[in-house]
Amino acid sequence: MNKFTLFLALFFINHQLFAEDLLGFSIDNSDFQKQLEADYDKYVNSEEMDDWLRYLSREPHHVGSLAGKKNAEYISNLLKSWGYEVEISEYHVLIPTPRIRELRMIAPSLYEATLDEDSLPEDPSTLIRENLLPPYNAFSTDGKVEGELVFVNYGMPQDYEVLERYGIDVEGKIAIAKYGRSWRGIKPKLAGEKGAIGTIIYSDPADDGFGVGDVYPKGPFKNESGVQRGSVMDMPTYPGDVLTPGIGATKSAKRLSFNEAITITKIPVLPISYRDALPLLSAMEGPVVPPEWRGDLPITYHLGPGPAKVKLNVEFNWETTVAYNVIATLKGSKFPDEWIIRGNHHDGWNHGAADPISGMVALLSEAKAIAQLAKMGHKPARTIIYAAWDAEEVGLIGSTEWVEDHANELRKHAVAYLNTDGNSRGFVNIGGSHILERFFNQIIEQVNDPILGISLKQRKQAFLRINSDSEQQQDDAENRNDIRINPLGSGSDYTPFLQHLGIASANIAFGGEGSGGSYHTLYDTYEHFTKWRDPGLIYGVSLAQVAGRATLRLANAERLPFEFGGFADNIQLYVDQLEDLANSMRENTIIQNARINDGTYKAALDPNKNVMPPKIKNNVPYFNFSPLRNAVTKLVNSANDFKALTKVNQEVNQEVNNLLYTIERLMTRNEGLPGREWYKHYIYAPGYYTGYGVKTIPAVREAIEQREFDQVENQINLSAEVVEKIAARIDAIIIAAN
Amino acid sequence: MNKFTLFLALFFINHQLFAEDLLGFSIDNSDFQKQLEADYDKYVNSEEMDDWLRYLSREPHHVGSLAGKKNAEYISNLLKSWGYEVEISEYHVLIPTPRIRELRMIAPSLYEATLDEDSLPEDPSTLIRENLLPPYNAFSTDGKVEGELVFVNYGMPQDYEVLERYGIDVEGKIAIAKYGRSWRGIKPKLAGEKGAIGTIIYSDPADDGFGVGDVYPKGPFKNESGVQRGSVMDMPTYPGDVLTPGIGATKSAKRLSFNEAITITKIPVLPISYRDALPLLSAMEGPVVPPEWRGDLPITYHLGPGPAKVKLNVEFNWETTVAYNVIATLKGSKFPDEWIIRGNHHDGWNHGAADPISGMVALLSEAKAIAQLAKMGHKPARTIIYAAWDAEEVGLIGSTEWVEDHANELRKHAVAYLNTDGNSRGFVNIGGSHILERFFNQIIEQVNDPILGISLKQRKQAFLRINSDSEQQQDDAENRNDIRINPLGSGSDYTPFLQHLGIASANIAFGGEGSGGSYHTLYDTYEHFTKWRDPGLIYGVSLAQVAGRATLRLANAERLPFEFGGFADNIQLYVDQLEDLANSMRENTIIQNARINDGTYKAALDPNKNVMPPKIKNNVPYFNFSPLRNAVTKLVNSANDFKALTKVNQEVNQEVNNLLYTIERLMTRNEGLPGREWYKHYIYAPGYYTGYGVKTIPAVREAIEQREFDQVENQINLSAEVVEKIAARIDAIIIAAN
Repeated sequence: MNKFTLFLALFFINHQLFAEDLLGFSIDNSDFQKQLEADYDKYVNSEEMDDWLRYLSREPHHVGSLAGKKNAEYISNLLKSWGYEVEISEYHVLIPTPRIRELRMIAPSLYEATLDEDSLPEDPSTLIRENLLPPYNAFSTDGKVEGELVFVNYGMPQDYEVLERYGIDVEGKIAIAKYGRSWRGIKPKLAGEKGAIGTIIYSDPADDGFGVGDVYPKGPFKNESGVQRGSVMDMPTYPGDVLTPGIGATKSAKRLSFNEAITITKIPVLPISYRDALPLLSAMEGPVVPPEWRGDLPITYHLGPGPAKVKLNVEFNWETTVAYNVIATLKGSKFPDEWIIRGNHHDGWNHGAADPISGMVALLSEAKAIAQLAKMGHKPARTIIYAAWDAEEVGLIGSTEWVEDHANELRKHAVAYLNTDGNSRGFVNIGGSHILERFFNQIIEQVNDPILGISLKQRKQAFLRINSDSEQQQDDAENRNDIRINPLGSGSDYTPFLQHLGIASANIAFGGEGSGGSYHTLYDTYEHFTKWRDPGLIYGVSLAQVAGRATLRLANAERLPFEFGGFADNIQLYVDQLEDLANSMRENTIIQNARINDGTYKAALDPNKNVMPPKIKNNVPYFNFSPLRNAVTKLVNSANDFKALTKVNQEVNQEVNNLLYTIERLMTRNEGLPGREWYKHYIYAPGYYTGYGVKTIPAVREAIEQREFDQVENQINLSAEVVEKIAARIDAIIIAAN
Repeated sequence: MNKFTLFLALFFINHQLFAEDLLGFSIDNSDFQKQLEADYDKYVNSEEMDDWLRYLSREPHHVGSLAGKKNAEYISNLLKSWGYEVEISEYHVLIPTPRIRELRMIAPSLYEATLDEDSLPEDPSTLIRENLLPPYNAFSTDGKVEGELVFVNYGMPQDYEVLERYGIDVEGKIAIAKYGRSWRGIKPKLAGEKGAIGTIIYSDPADDGFGVGDVYPKGPFKNESGVQRGSVMDMPTYPGDVLTPGIGATKSAKRLSFNEAITITKIPVLPISYRDALPLLSAMEGPVVPPEWRGDLPITYHLGPGPAKVKLNVEFNWETTVAYNVIATLKGSKFPDEWIIRGNHHDGWNHGAADPISGMVALLSEAKAIAQLAKMGHKPARTIIYAAWDAEEVGLIGSTEWVEDHANELRKHAVAYLNTDGNSRGFVNIGGSHILERFFNQIIEQVNDPILGISLKQRKQAFLRINSDSEQQQDDAENRNDIRINPLGSGSDYTPFLQHLGIASANIAFGGEGSGGSYHTLYDTYEHFTKWRDPGLIYGVSLAQVAGRATLRLANAERLPFEFGGFADNIQLYVDQLEDLANSMRENTIIQNARINDGTYKAALDPNKNVMPPKIKNNVPYFNFSPLRNAVTKLVNSANDFKALTKVNQEVNQEVNNLLYTIERLMTRNEGLPGREWYKHYIYAPGYYTGYGVKTIPAVREAIEQREFDQVENQINLSAEVVEKIAARIDAIIIAAN
């Protein structure tokens, strides 16, 4: 290399690599990769997707159904035909299907809930009801109970604080809760903890019905008969087969007894439509609900208890059922032991056109295109594994069992897991490990919105600028170069990869403009999807473009495209949030306790109403956050040092790559989070009392939120250790790379 | 006086006078006054109030009704019997009553609006319908129109900005608006300005119906048939008789022709119930309304236009009607030429138990008790005039005509005007001239809540601490000694006194815990009031205690109890708000225009929906606020100097008192506010586009809000002159007092 080319090379290192080159690729290989991606795009085909969508959502195909098994085979055959090595991996899992579902109001008037959804001539798919799972909540316990109703709003912890101020509790009562605000399983879990004997969950039209927009079939929203099915398994404790936590549910696996399965609800639960909720809620008395609790039914909402009294009776067939995961492998040409895993579930609650088939067809299109490229000589350098999971809906069961079953191999070989699920029209949403933040930002800078022709990133930033009501997000959208990818809680199949094993993961979807209340109802059909959610599957193509690029780049990058600047910045933000949380809780507690003690509440409350001041809360001590702060400082410094490693080494350094892709493992602790050993990730977890909603640095955050203040500093120390390990690993990578 | 007593006297001046003594009273006279007030309280009697309430609300008693005239005579006779010199002062005013009210949907389906309220066996008063004014909006113009409906939310300026983004206008259409958020007259005024040919106003159950609480008769809220009547006269231009602006509507007064009466609406208006609104709104199509526009009817709300098409036909009897004001005088024993005027209207839309009789009976009780004290030798030092106004509901007509008719005497003699109107249970609300802020704070420190036994001020502060969502109010409730009294906009009879003549005024009411949607409906009955709003009239007694103290203290104080510290502090706050308003509008305009120009809006909007970016707005220049700032500095200094005038001079200084009570006159400018000469007060005015809602330093504030930026500095200068005059007057008072 002469001086001039050295100058040029340095120039490119400093100015070009970041501006133009693909993360993890040398300049030459970047160009090659870009050409590959341009070819890839040509193979992605919405018409094919549409055919698959129509076929795979032709009839109900839940786990255990004949159509489900057929779909697995169909997917398997497709993948095989494209050249993948395919295996259908079977697990023997406990799946409840309903035998008895009865809900009857017995006072002050009689009403027998229909518990059924209307077939609509406008949507022929809804006439296909053979094999249809009726509305129920999977992993509700069996039970026959009778009691007065108490309206618990969304059934969240803060809702019970409000009820307490009205002197109302659910002890011995049946809680009726609105869907929304939390993962549904939280509602019976918390109601049960508070002494309720049963839970009814319904979709209020204010959240998911005529209040939001025209209802199906006139519009996309939930009509009066629609019921959201869904699992109420205690997934924040552990997901997957309830009898085999931590291990694969193979035929011979050692199983818990039914009674040891703590993730089954303690009390019976049943979901209903707002048509069935109306007579029950109308019959309630007691105090009128606080204004922010109101729904959109044409009644005055009351808290109860009673006089509405109901009998709830649910009983299930608890059957060991085979879940069929389709696992398709394309061996890497250079690094076959480094695996990029790319999954989407295939089981649906019913026809499941949006959820999950709209994501599945993008995955299939991607798999086909990549196979095509391979056939043309561009075989990926790393191994790609396409997975079509079964039994996701009932509790991430297919993926969890496979992950548990293959834990050791995965810990060793898995570079990343990329997930998709239902897709829709609108803006790109990426959640995932923040070591992938820059990586995904680069991708969405390079893929354009299919309608507006500007980059996905520009669209998303515009959206955040105009529509976000978070100051942080607004500020980020103006001033931060990269869009923050969302930390992942739970809700789809990335959970076992990310939170159980510490495999860098991401979840990709479009949404925000395709609307509807078809989720988990009879109306999640091909007709609904193609009319309301993604007509022409044009965002299905976008999804394949984004996910396909992510897969291909992870598979082909010389240096794995992980980056730590964004990660460090997000961790710093989380630590700021934790301190802010403690500070604001401390201040609010002091003020509120003072106002209780000095009679301010009493003076402000209506003496003619039976509303009490809040209860005195334990004061929030000051916590020593310095271990976390010091760890974050190290992390920021290490991340900065890593940024200086701009040049991709043409001699691929396998040690660097190995250190890179196993870094996410360091975010786990084998002991797991307090009270839920299965969840081992110390940076991201689904909230114990929110379910899907993420808690970052969860052990600390939940100790504060749940006012277990004596746990906080210990958890700060443990979390700081995790962060320190990451910083040290980054330093080791830098050394290994030089 | 020896040295020790001098020390004591000084001690009391410094430490006691402010802590204990009544504002404007020497120590001796304070004690006397307190005793007088203790005696006064003994004469205030809820049983008597209850009798009067029952009688005065026995049947509909609007202006022009026989019962209205009878009520005036009854009130007059009572006052006479207690020793007042009573006159019934008559004005000949134009009052429209409905002849034709028709609303018919003619497409896409047929519906004939009932336009009627249901009589309820549970409330015998609602069976008394003779003489009942059916639901209508007084001072709607006559008109027969036919057009498609457009849903305009609350019909406020910002609502039309939203419609514009959907490409929807009301040109040639009929606007259907929800009651609330603004004074009702704004809705047709603005709709008319935008080209609508008619306006329908309805009460949405989300604001005033089952959404809020149980409906009448089960609960207090508006049932499906209830309709809020009310005036839609353009009161922000001028209130009172539409034909005699600025002058008393005596029999011989020179009148405008009907066509010159600009305060009559330009387009026909009709109020309807939510029962009648439901079929109309259900039949509308077009875009679904934005989420914050939704109401609580069990439908998806659409913006239109159409296809719902209605015929609206309203015609009125435009008759010259006699309004009977009852004016009762008790001559002052020492300063008969200084008048304390105390008023409440007596006309109701229907039975009018809450509005206005609940306030009227407190006034009567007060008048009786004060007369009793006078008989016992404690005649007030100043003249007290009790007024029972007629024709308030249709447009503050009785009071306005009397004020206009007596303008010269009032300018000379009126010390203050104290208003009450409907009363309810709960917290004390005082609005008024801020030179009365300290005065009223002292009173509410000394009157206790009838249930909790703590002072009204403590209760109110507790309420603001716990319930206010304004940071300013929260902060004030923690840190400011005095509760800020609210600046007055409009909505009751203080308007002509305060805003036309510059007479220091206040409006006193309790509320916040008595609930209901009976306002201006058939259901504003004795039964409703005594069950839901103030059972036992215990807050009626509190109202008499507060208003009676205010009347007695103003009547007896040696030095008139005006104070300027609170006034200066509030003016300073208003100027801060004006600067903040200009700054935030400037910033928002820059950001929004930039986002329009750089395509951010376009990128964020759903390309499948026809929603456009906002329109470019004119940039907000920087304004020279220094004249106002300098004037406020002078005001603050003068107010501080005035505070040093602690000692009440035993030799009453009439010059000081005269300078004091005419100080509010200096807040007016004879030219009036821009575009509405009748409103002369330069500190307080009802908003031109809010109606009841106050605008402080209105000429400046509205020039900014309405983006008439070339007017702002001129109005700053004029407003500054007003503030300077007040400061100079305070200085003159200090000189006169020394």
